[in-house]
Amino acid sequence: MTPTITAFEASPDRGQGLARDTRVRWAFEEVGQPYDVRLVSFKAMKEPAHLALHPFGQIPTYEEGDLALFETGSILFHIAERHAGLLPEDANARARAITWMFAAVSTVEPPILELANARLLEGDRPWAKKRLPVVVDRVRDRLKQLSTRLGEADWLDGAFSAGDLMMAHVLQRLKPSGILNEFPNLSAYVARAEARPAYKRAFDAQLAVFTGKPTG
Amino acid sequence: MTPTITAFEASPDRGQGLARDTRVRWAFEEVGQPYDVRLVSFKAMKEPAHLALHPFGQIPTYEEGDLALFETGSILFHIAERHAGLLPEDANARARAITWMFAAVSTVEPPILELANARLLEGDRPWAKKRLPVVVDRVRDRLKQLSTRLGEADWLDGAFSAGDLMMAHVLQRLKPSGILNEFPNLSAYVARAEARPAYKRAFDAQLAVFTGKPTG
Repeated sequence: MTPTITAFEASPDRGQGLARDTRVRWAFEEVGQPYDVRLVSFKAMKEPAHLALHPFGQIPTYEEGDLALFETGSILFHIAERHAGLLPEDANARARAITWMFAAVSTVEPPILELANARLLEGDRPWAKKRLPVVVDRVRDRLKQLSTRLGEADWLDGAFSAGDLMMAHVLQRLKPSGILNEFPNLSAYVARAEARPAYKRAFDAQLAVFTGKPTG
Repeated sequence: MTPTITAFEASPDRGQGLARDTRVRWAFEEVGQPYDVRLVSFKAMKEPAHLALHPFGQIPTYEEGDLALFETGSILFHIAERHAGLLPEDANARARAITWMFAAVSTVEPPILELANARLLEGDRPWAKKRLPVVVDRVRDRLKQLSTRLGEADWLDGAFSAGDLMMAHVLQRLKPSGILNEFPNLSAYVARAEARPAYKRAFDAQLAVFTGKPTG
């Protein structure tokens, strides 16, 4: 049975890969599995039918027969557990890759989202301009730690894994800010991830929703 | 081999259960497994030996032979995969419990941490007072969605799971703010979690680090 995921009918970034369905599309492409997409409007995301799938009214969701999941971490893990290519076979290496999935969404992403909130949700507030450097510094502190750990390695722990997929997508959001460029090894890490054929296929499929042009 | 975790030598909350080692202690207690604790000072947390275990310089970490993990989500999952009691046996129910683990740390906790930052890190900034209600509203929006999903149920999806353990601990931080009390079912959910014997044992063990009194 082909799983169905949900994605924005009209993505705020005009299909440039920032929406979180990118992570799930990319995971499917890495493991070579087909998937169907159901597009949802902003209005429909807050209605009971979608909230039954995703209690926080977001995308993506994952449906496969009786199973319905939300949270990209959980969906990626579900795909990675069932198909080779996203988690190492060695038990310890697998546990460390799962660690990086959690680190991406619960340690690295929160200050990046706080920066997005400072710009998008509080950009017109009287404190916006003075507060921004404080928030940027919190992001910078995290990136410094991540950059130190990555060092000269291609990926966070051995071969590319679901942990790298998640981390690279979390970091991508920083590209327009210029902060990522302060850390050349992180910038190269994201570029390396974006150069993967699976990422390109996922990106093209998401962009095609916006442009209306078929892929492939 | 008994795993070793790290915890604060001097917890900022004076051992009242807010530090993240609580989650791991609680998980060990739920599955009935022994663990050792190594205490670390704030200074030592930023030194190379600890950064080798935890690149972001935090606690807890988990060591078991050659394996070293960080991130409470990853550590909880590692414990839950190896010992019965924290994840359902049914594959779909297990995937949903994992979903709630990710939801707790990547969707519910970030606005709660943003509120903590607003109070602790930015409390003396000129914008602090005016901005606080904006941040509180973001927390409230999330709790409203979570409260709606929980409804009258005891736990988020069937029996108590690692997802509930994580969510209850994430919500606990809100108790002093009064926001949790605006949602009686969430408040009761946290109280239900805290009433579990395993939680009480974890809490007592953590408090004993601060008081210097042995437990049990």
